[in-house]
Amino acid sequence: MKNIYMIGVGLIGGSLAIDIKKKYPDVVIHGISRKDSTLEEALALNLIDKKASLDDIENADMVIISIPVDATVKLLPSVLDKISDTGLVVDAGSTKAAICACVENHPKRRNFLAMHPIAGTEHSGPSAAIEGLFVGKTNIVCEVEKTTFKLQEKALELFKSIGMRIRYMHPVAHDKHIAYVSHLSHISSFMLGKTVIDKEKNERDIFDMAGSGFASTVRLAKSSPEMWTPIFKQNKDNVIETLEEYIINLTHFKELMKEDNFDAIFDEMKSTNYIKDILKGIS
Amino acid sequence: MKNIYMIGVGLIGGSLAIDIKKKYPDVVIHGISRKDSTLEEALALNLIDKKASLDDIENADMVIISIPVDATVKLLPSVLDKISDTGLVVDAGSTKAAICACVENHPKRRNFLAMHPIAGTEHSGPSAAIEGLFVGKTNIVCEVEKTTFKLQEKALELFKSIGMRIRYMHPVAHDKHIAYVSHLSHISSFMLGKTVIDKEKNERDIFDMAGSGFASTVRLAKSSPEMWTPIFKQNKDNVIETLEEYIINLTHFKELMKEDNFDAIFDEMKSTNYIKDILKGIS
Repeated sequence: MKNIYMIGVGLIGGSLAIDIKKKYPDVVIHGISRKDSTLEEALALNLIDKKASLDDIENADMVIISIPVDATVKLLPSVLDKISDTGLVVDAGSTKAAICACVENHPKRRNFLAMHPIAGTEHSGPSAAIEGLFVGKTNIVCEVEKTTFKLQEKALELFKSIGMRIRYMHPVAHDKHIAYVSHLSHISSFMLGKTVIDKEKNERDIFDMAGSGFASTVRLAKSSPEMWTPIFKQNKDNVIETLEEYIINLTHFKELMKEDNFDAIFDEMKSTNYIKDILKGIS
Repeated sequence: MKNIYMIGVGLIGGSLAIDIKKKYPDVVIHGISRKDSTLEEALALNLIDKKASLDDIENADMVIISIPVDATVKLLPSVLDKISDTGLVVDAGSTKAAICACVENHPKRRNFLAMHPIAGTEHSGPSAAIEGLFVGKTNIVCEVEKTTFKLQEKALELFKSIGMRIRYMHPVAHDKHIAYVSHLSHISSFMLGKTVIDKEKNERDIFDMAGSGFASTVRLAKSSPEMWTPIFKQNKDNVIETLEEYIINLTHFKELMKEDNFDAIFDEMKSTNYIKDILKGIS
């Protein structure tokens, strides 16, 4: 592997570039972005070696797409049109069903691998890229049987070499479960932030009272709307289902409080403490 | 100041003991707890110098009460009965109105100072005590005018010396605002944990998909129900109000998704990104 093209050089693409370059110093990382200013920033930060454009993709051994998922669905078929027979296109999107569907009947489907490296922070853009972001994290790979064996093997070797463990999952199952363990967290956090800001916006001093618990719970409300709106759109039905269940649980908790049923409130919390065991191993 | 009695030697009491001992090596820290096993643990961890009982309080220069807030309301009047004229009782509870009310007409009200050091983690008990927990954190002091000047001065000097900044607030205002910036976060986190556990409890592999975002958002769901049930009970009206507003905001978000109004979804998130500025400085 010699030439890797990163379409999108933000938090995910940029962090991948750092770790890949570290493991494979001879690889040339080419950056592609809608905006030249983003590429200039990525160059200045040493995330990429060279600027490139979509027309150069025929020279790629591997293309990694890390852009908003609506843009991926639009762009992926034409990227796959351009890839050479020995090249591989992978995407790192947070949804998988729509992305897999958009190339389902593409003549070069076997040159594509769908994945979701589950790693990130609440920051975005090239300056958010950090070393070691993927160490110990899970990479969900979808429809692996639809990719040329040798090509998927090469890709998974690369992702394992930067510290990821691989899990295989159907794209529809991925979208259903990720709605619970990732998408819902983002909405709960955004709406928590909104609720507090709406109430306290004229009383800035109040935020002196906010401790590390609040900071942790609203951290995801700093996330990029440009990235997250298309995710919620593509995963609409699953996300609505999680939201409905979450609202039912919150309403039930509120009703228990109104009824002064604090024994039940205690039990609700006690049984959820079990999350301790579940979270062991997630940093 | 020579003898400090800690009623409660868990996360807050234990962490205070560590930092006070470090700043004032000559102070003798006496531990009081319902359970002897807790005191033995605190001794073994070097959080306290000696075990004591409520009968010893007449010898205290300062008593710091860090126990569940319902227990504080029950115990505080009798502790104040026992304190010497030159001794001070402070409490570190997460609610302030009921605690201030329970000693409002106490003949020794001037020997009591109500405070809420806003610091903590999701862990509890003596083993959760850590050094430096209070550095850079806010200590809310209520009804300072009701405490003997010299005694409050001594207490605030102590809390400043371990790194805290002091803010003054009416107990009713404290309970209203803390419901937004602390109590609501805990419920949003507990119910997020519950929603995901209910859905995924038979599919443990799914938690491989949970990333650091989920971990951060449900961190507070590890908190102690013994500590939090009485807080929600004492602050019932304020907490119900915050929950109602939170549920309205979540329902609105869900309705926007159902209507495919993703421009509005984008705007909701964009305007909440403002939380970045607010959170600056909170670790």
